[in-house]
Amino acid sequence: MKTITENMTRIDQFEKKTLKNNKQLTLDWKVGFAKQKEDSPKEYYNAIVPGAVQLDYARAHNWPNLFMDDNFKAYGWMEDVFWIYKTNFEIGELSEDSDLYFYAGGIDYQFDIMVNGRIIYEQEGMFTPIHIALTDHLLKENELIVRIHPAPKVKGVAVGRDEASQSAKPAVSYGWDWHPRLIPLGIWDKCYLELKNDSFIKDVYVDYTLNDDLSKVDLQIIPEIVNKNFNYTYVWRLLNKDGVSVIERETDKKEIMSFSFDQPLLWWPHDHGDPYLYTSVFQLKNQNGKVIDEKQQQVGFRKVKLVMNPGTWELERRPMSRSYPPITIKINNKEIFSKGTNWVNPEIFPGTITKKRYEDLLNRVLEGNFNMLRAWGGSIVCKEAFYEFCNKKGILVWTEFPLSCNNYVGTKTYLNVLEQEAKSIIKRIRKHPSHVLWSGGNELFNDWSRMTDQSLALRLLNKQCYDLDPKNPFIPTAPVAGMAHGNYVFKDPDTKEEVYQWIANTKATAYTEFGMPGPSDVSILKQIIPEKDLFPPKKGTSWETHHAFGAWIGDTWLQLDLLNEYFGEAKHLEELVANGQWLQCEGYKAIYEEARRQKPYCSMALNWCFNEPWPTAANNSIINYPNIPKPSFYSVADSCRPVLASARISKFCWEEDEIFEAELWILNDRYKKIDSGTVQAKLLIDSNEYELTSWKFQSIEENQNLLGPTVRFRLPKTSNNHFKLVLEVSERSEWNSSYKLKYVHKKVIEKDRSILA
Amino acid sequence: MKTITENMTRIDQFEKKTLKNNKQLTLDWKVGFAKQKEDSPKEYYNAIVPGAVQLDYARAHNWPNLFMDDNFKAYGWMEDVFWIYKTNFEIGELSEDSDLYFYAGGIDYQFDIMVNGRIIYEQEGMFTPIHIALTDHLLKENELIVRIHPAPKVKGVAVGRDEASQSAKPAVSYGWDWHPRLIPLGIWDKCYLELKNDSFIKDVYVDYTLNDDLSKVDLQIIPEIVNKNFNYTYVWRLLNKDGVSVIERETDKKEIMSFSFDQPLLWWPHDHGDPYLYTSVFQLKNQNGKVIDEKQQQVGFRKVKLVMNPGTWELERRPMSRSYPPITIKINNKEIFSKGTNWVNPEIFPGTITKKRYEDLLNRVLEGNFNMLRAWGGSIVCKEAFYEFCNKKGILVWTEFPLSCNNYVGTKTYLNVLEQEAKSIIKRIRKHPSHVLWSGGNELFNDWSRMTDQSLALRLLNKQCYDLDPKNPFIPTAPVAGMAHGNYVFKDPDTKEEVYQWIANTKATAYTEFGMPGPSDVSILKQIIPEKDLFPPKKGTSWETHHAFGAWIGDTWLQLDLLNEYFGEAKHLEELVANGQWLQCEGYKAIYEEARRQKPYCSMALNWCFNEPWPTAANNSIINYPNIPKPSFYSVADSCRPVLASARISKFCWEEDEIFEAELWILNDRYKKIDSGTVQAKLLIDSNEYELTSWKFQSIEENQNLLGPTVRFRLPKTSNNHFKLVLEVSERSEWNSSYKLKYVHKKVIEKDRSILA
Repeated sequence: MKTITENMTRIDQFEKKTLKNNKQLTLDWKVGFAKQKEDSPKEYYNAIVPGAVQLDYARAHNWPNLFMDDNFKAYGWMEDVFWIYKTNFEIGELSEDSDLYFYAGGIDYQFDIMVNGRIIYEQEGMFTPIHIALTDHLLKENELIVRIHPAPKVKGVAVGRDEASQSAKPAVSYGWDWHPRLIPLGIWDKCYLELKNDSFIKDVYVDYTLNDDLSKVDLQIIPEIVNKNFNYTYVWRLLNKDGVSVIERETDKKEIMSFSFDQPLLWWPHDHGDPYLYTSVFQLKNQNGKVIDEKQQQVGFRKVKLVMNPGTWELERRPMSRSYPPITIKINNKEIFSKGTNWVNPEIFPGTITKKRYEDLLNRVLEGNFNMLRAWGGSIVCKEAFYEFCNKKGILVWTEFPLSCNNYVGTKTYLNVLEQEAKSIIKRIRKHPSHVLWSGGNELFNDWSRMTDQSLALRLLNKQCYDLDPKNPFIPTAPVAGMAHGNYVFKDPDTKEEVYQWIANTKATAYTEFGMPGPSDVSILKQIIPEKDLFPPKKGTSWETHHAFGAWIGDTWLQLDLLNEYFGEAKHLEELVANGQWLQCEGYKAIYEEARRQKPYCSMALNWCFNEPWPTAANNSIINYPNIPKPSFYSVADSCRPVLASARISKFCWEEDEIFEAELWILNDRYKKIDSGTVQAKLLIDSNEYELTSWKFQSIEENQNLLGPTVRFRLPKTSNNHFKLVLEVSERSEWNSSYKLKYVHKKVIEKDRSILA
Repeated sequence: MKTITENMTRIDQFEKKTLKNNKQLTLDWKVGFAKQKEDSPKEYYNAIVPGAVQLDYARAHNWPNLFMDDNFKAYGWMEDVFWIYKTNFEIGELSEDSDLYFYAGGIDYQFDIMVNGRIIYEQEGMFTPIHIALTDHLLKENELIVRIHPAPKVKGVAVGRDEASQSAKPAVSYGWDWHPRLIPLGIWDKCYLELKNDSFIKDVYVDYTLNDDLSKVDLQIIPEIVNKNFNYTYVWRLLNKDGVSVIERETDKKEIMSFSFDQPLLWWPHDHGDPYLYTSVFQLKNQNGKVIDEKQQQVGFRKVKLVMNPGTWELERRPMSRSYPPITIKINNKEIFSKGTNWVNPEIFPGTITKKRYEDLLNRVLEGNFNMLRAWGGSIVCKEAFYEFCNKKGILVWTEFPLSCNNYVGTKTYLNVLEQEAKSIIKRIRKHPSHVLWSGGNELFNDWSRMTDQSLALRLLNKQCYDLDPKNPFIPTAPVAGMAHGNYVFKDPDTKEEVYQWIANTKATAYTEFGMPGPSDVSILKQIIPEKDLFPPKKGTSWETHHAFGAWIGDTWLQLDLLNEYFGEAKHLEELVANGQWLQCEGYKAIYEEARRQKPYCSMALNWCFNEPWPTAANNSIINYPNIPKPSFYSVADSCRPVLASARISKFCWEEDEIFEAELWILNDRYKKIDSGTVQAKLLIDSNEYELTSWKFQSIEENQNLLGPTVRFRLPKTSNNHFKLVLEVSERSEWNSSYKLKYVHKKVIEKDRSILA
C-alpha cells in the first residue's frame, strides 16, 4: 500500500495538463474514527467517495455480507463516533485569476471542513451542497479534512425515529418496519476540487410560464454569477432535441433575460404523450468572445395544477365544514389519473446509489405502467440522476421534504437547518419538469406524528415553496383530508374485512399509500436467513429482523396466521411463499382497479411500496432488493394498463354451489375514444372453461370507464383449491385480465368451524 | 359660505403657534365628482373627513334618511364616478430640518394624490396608510387633491360580491343577505398634515417571547426610523399600570434593543383574569438630550397557541385520512372555551365609525359574557380604537383578511395589492395583545367560493403571517375541517330538523357561525318600513330590501312560513315580532349550551352575528343598529355565563299528556372548582309550579361540565300556548336558567294534520 504522501496529488500538474476552468479533480480519501471531537483517528482506512463511513470500515475489516442474518447489528456503534475523512494534496502555482474550490454535493450529516488544521466551514444538513474557495488557506502541501459528527439524536426519547425529530436527516434509517436500524454517515454525493476563474456560473434557473392554451411560453433566465471585476456577456440558447437552437440571445446587461416562445413542444407524462425535452445552454463570454463558463440543463415545458376532484365541492348537510382539498394532477390542462407507487431509498447508504441503479429501477416503473412516483419523505431527496431519468422518460414525481412520522417541533435551531436545507432542495428540484408536487412530509397530521397546520416547520416549507417555486403545488403532508393511507394487509385483523370489502367501502380522493404484504422468493430468503432458520419461519430468528414478524401491527409482514387460515399450514417454504405471493397479487389488483373504478372522485393510486433498500423476508414492496420483481409487480402492471377489462369481486373465498358474482368494467385512462367490442367472461375451474357472458360493449369516451353487466354463476364441485375468472377482449387481447380466487371445499369449512367452535 | 381661499390655512402660523415636531393639522376638505378621470368636478360640497363621499353628497343635497324604505337605492350611481377631494393651504417658511407630510390612515379604495396639479402618489388599497413628504412639491399657495377612482369591479360577472373578487376591498358592500348594495368610497380614517424633523419614528414593534412557564419575557424593540444625517439615541421604557418604569434603557446603537424581564404580569381574557397592560414608550433624543420624537403603545404579554381539540387525534378505521386541524385557543397555557360572536361592520360607511361607537358596542360584548370576537372578513379590518378597547377589556379577537365568499384568483395584479395590504394589516394588528388568530378569510373552501389550499392568495397570506407574526396562529379560512358553519334557521326546511336536533347530532370542533333569525322591535320597523307596508309583511316591500324575505335560502329572515306553522297567523305586528323573537331566544340558547356541553371536543361557539350596519327588518343579529339589544342578546348572555345550570331539551313543541324530558347539566368554564350544591328543576305551567327533581350535585372540577339526571314529567292540560322549564341553584341564583317552550293542544294538532292531509 502506498503511503498518503506518495499518493499526494500535485495540483499544478493537474492544472498544466488540463488547464481549463471547471476541471474537476477527484481526490483519494482515507477515513478513520475518533470517540472525541478533538481526537485524531488511531487508524485510517481507504474510503470510497461518495459512499458511507460504515462501508469503508466494514470493507477494511472484511466484514461479512451486511444483509445475511443479523450482521447489520455490528454497525450500531458507528452512529456515535466522529468520522474523519482526510486527503492530502500538493499545490504548485495557480494563476492569479484562479481559485481552487472544494465541492461536495452532499455530506451526511453534521460536519466541519478543515484545511491544514484550521476549521474553515461548518454545516448541519446533508442536502445543501458546499462550494468553498480554498485558495486563501493553502500551503504547498495541504491536508483537507471533512469531520463528520455523530448521527443527530434527540436525547431522552426512545431509540427509533423520534431521535430524528430535530434534524433534517431522513428518519427511515433510525429503524422502520422494512428498514434496519442503521444510520448512514459520510460523503454521499459527488465531491471534488475544481479550479474556477474570477467569474463563473454558480447556478441558472430557467423559469417559465405557459399561457392558458399552452401556445406560448414566457421564459425568464435567472443566472447566479460569481464575479470579481470581470467584464462578460451572457449567452443563452435553447436547443431542441436535434441540437438546433430555437432561441439564441446574447447580452451584456447583467440582469434576468426574458423571452417569449410560441408553440413550444410540451413535456407530457409517458402515457399521455411525449416528454419533450429542450436543452438550455447558458454561457459566460469574456471580452475576447471566449466562452469561460457554461451550464447545460434539461428543460421541459408543462403546466401543472392541483385541481379539485369532481364531486368533492358538495357537502351533504348543514352545519357545513370545508370541502376536501384538491389532489387531482392536471398536466397541460388534462386531468391525469395518477397510477404509481411509493419510492423509497433503494439502498441503506445513499452514497452507493449510482445513476445505473436509479435507471434500472426506473425502467421497472415504466414496465409497471406507472406514471407517478411519490418520493417518500422518510428517505433522502433523490439525486439528480433520478430526476433526469424521470424527465427523459415522462415519469411524474411527487417530492417530499425529509420529515416523516414525527413531530418536528419548530425550535429556532431546527427551523434554521430546515430553512437552509429546504432552500437547497427547492432550488435543485424545481428545475426538473418531472417534479410536479411538493409535500411537507409523510403522515405528519396523524396521531403517531402530531404535527398540525400550526406547526412552524410546515408553515416555513409552504412559504419557501411559495417564494421559490409557486407554480408547483404544495401540500403540507400526505394524507390530507379526503386522501387515504392504508390498509396494509389483505384482511384487517380487527374488522375482519378483506381488501375486496374495505376498498369498496371507502371513498377517497386519492389512495396514496396502501400495502399488501408478500414474502420474498425462496432464492432471496436463502441469502438472508441462515439455513437452519429457513423453515418453518419463527419469531426471534432473522425472519423477524428482516421484517416477517412484529414489523407493524397485527401479524406482519409474513402474516403466517392469515396464510394458515386461508391455506392451512404450508408443508414447505416454496408453498408458503407461493400462497403469500398469491394474496399479494390479488390484493394489489383489487385496490388498483377499484381506485380506478372510483374515478373521477378518486384520481390517484400509489401502492406502499415499490422497492426496498435491503432484501426483506416479507414486505409490501413489489420489487425485491436490488431489482427483482415479485409476482405482484406483474399483477400491478396489468392493473395499471391504460385500458383493461376489469372485474369487481366481493371476496376471496368461494364455496361449491355458491353463486359466484362479479361486476364487469372497462377501465380507460387514455384521452382516446374506444370503439365498441366484446368481452368474454369465463371461469376456469380445473381444466374446464365455463362461459359466463359475452358482453357487447358500446364505444367508450376518452378517459372514461364503462360499467358492464354483473355476471353470476353457480360454482361446480372441484377438488382444486383455486379457480380463475378470465376476461378476454376480442381483437384486443392486450386488455385481457384474470383473477385467481380461492375455492373452499365445504368439508374444509365444516372442519374449520368445528375447530373454531 | 366662505370661499376656499378664505378658508385657507397658513402653515407658518400653525408652525409658529405650536412649533413642535409631530403637530398634526387637520384640513378642511371639499369633495365633488366627475365622470371621467381627467375631468374636474362641476361642483364641490363640504366634506367630513374621515367619512364617505356618498354621505357628503347626500348631506349637501338634503337627502332623506338612508335607512327608510328603499332610499339607499338612490346612491347606486356613486360607485362608478371619480370623486375628487380638494383642500388648499398657504405655506410660509419651514425650518430647514422640517418636512411637511400628508398622512392618511386609510383611503378607500383606489386613489391618486395630487399636489398643485401633479400626481405625486398612486395607490390601490384602503388598508395601507400613506405618509408622504410634500415639501419638494410645495408653492406658497397649495392645492392638495385626493382623487378616488370608481369602486373596483370585475367586469363580466353578475352584480354582487363576485365583482369584489379581484380587489382587497371588503365584499360585503357589494350586497349581502343583511347588507344593502352600497359601496363606500372616500377617506375613511384619520387624515392630516404634520411637520416632521429630519429624524422621526415611523413605527416601533415590541416583539416578545414568553417562556414556557410564563415566568420570563424576552423582548425585542424593533424601531423603524426615518433619518437624514442626524445623531440620536434611543430611549425605551416600559411603564406599568401606575406609570412606573419597570424597564428603562438608553442606547446610541442603531439596532434592535433586546431585554429580558422576569415575572411579567400577564394579559388574560376578561373571564380568566386581568388583561394587564403595560405601556411602551419609545423616544428619539438628539445630541442635546432633547426628546425629538416619541411613540407610545399598549403592550400585553400573553402566550397564544392553537392546540388540538381533545379526541380529534384518533381516527376510526383504516384507510386513514388526517386528523382535524386544531382550533382550541390556549392562552397562557390554559385552554379557553371561546364564547363569542361574529363582529361585522357597525356602519355601512367605515369612515363614520368612531371610537365611542366601537366602545359602546364592545361594552355589549362584555355584557354578553363573550370572550371572543371573530372580526369577519367580509367587513373592514377594524380601526385601532377597536383593538385598543379589546386590549383594555380582555376581549380575544380573531382577525380575518378582507376575503369572503369569492374565488380570489392569484393574478399578478391581485397578489401585489394583497401583499401590500396584508403587510400593512399585519404590521398594525400584531401589536395588539387582544388579537390572537389570523384567518385568510370567510368560507373560502366551500363551493360558493371555490378557493383551495392551492390558491396563491392564501399561500401568500400564510407566508406573510409567518414572516411578520409567526407567534400568532393562522388558519387559511373558516371553516376548516372539523369546524361548523350553519345552520342559520330554527328548523331546517329540507330535513325538518329543529335546532335542538341538528345541534345535538353534530360533533364539531368549533361552531364558528350559527344563526337564528329574529325580527327587529316594532319601534325599529317603524323607522325603516313605511306605515302602509308595516302589516302584514309582504314581499316586494321594504320588508324585503331590509332582508325579511328572500335574503338567504328558504323563507329568510322573517320566516313567516315557520312562524305561521308554529303559532298560526299573527293578528298584529307586535304578536309576529314577539313570536319571532321567542324562537331566536330559545334557538340561540340551544346552540350555545349544547356547544358548551360538547366541550372539550368542541372549544368554540360564535353566533352569526352580533351587530348590523343598518337597521334590518329581520336578521340573525342579536344587537340591532346602532346598538339596541334584541331579547335574544340577553338569552345568549345567560347561556354564556361562566357557570350555569343548563338543560338539554330535544324539541320545541310539547303536547298535553306527553312525557316531557330534559337532561340536566352544570356548565363550568372557569378554572375554579365548584362546591357541591342543589339544583331544583321545575315546570311553570300557567300559574302552577311542578317540581321535577332536586338534584344534589357533587363538587365539579375546574373547567369541567357535569351531567346530572334526566327528568321526566307527564304534561298536564293547559289552555296556555307555552310553558317554562326553570332551573334554580340553591344559594347561587346567578346560575339559574329557564327555557320557554311551546305547548301544543291536541285539537290544534289534529286540525293541522287535517290541513296537511
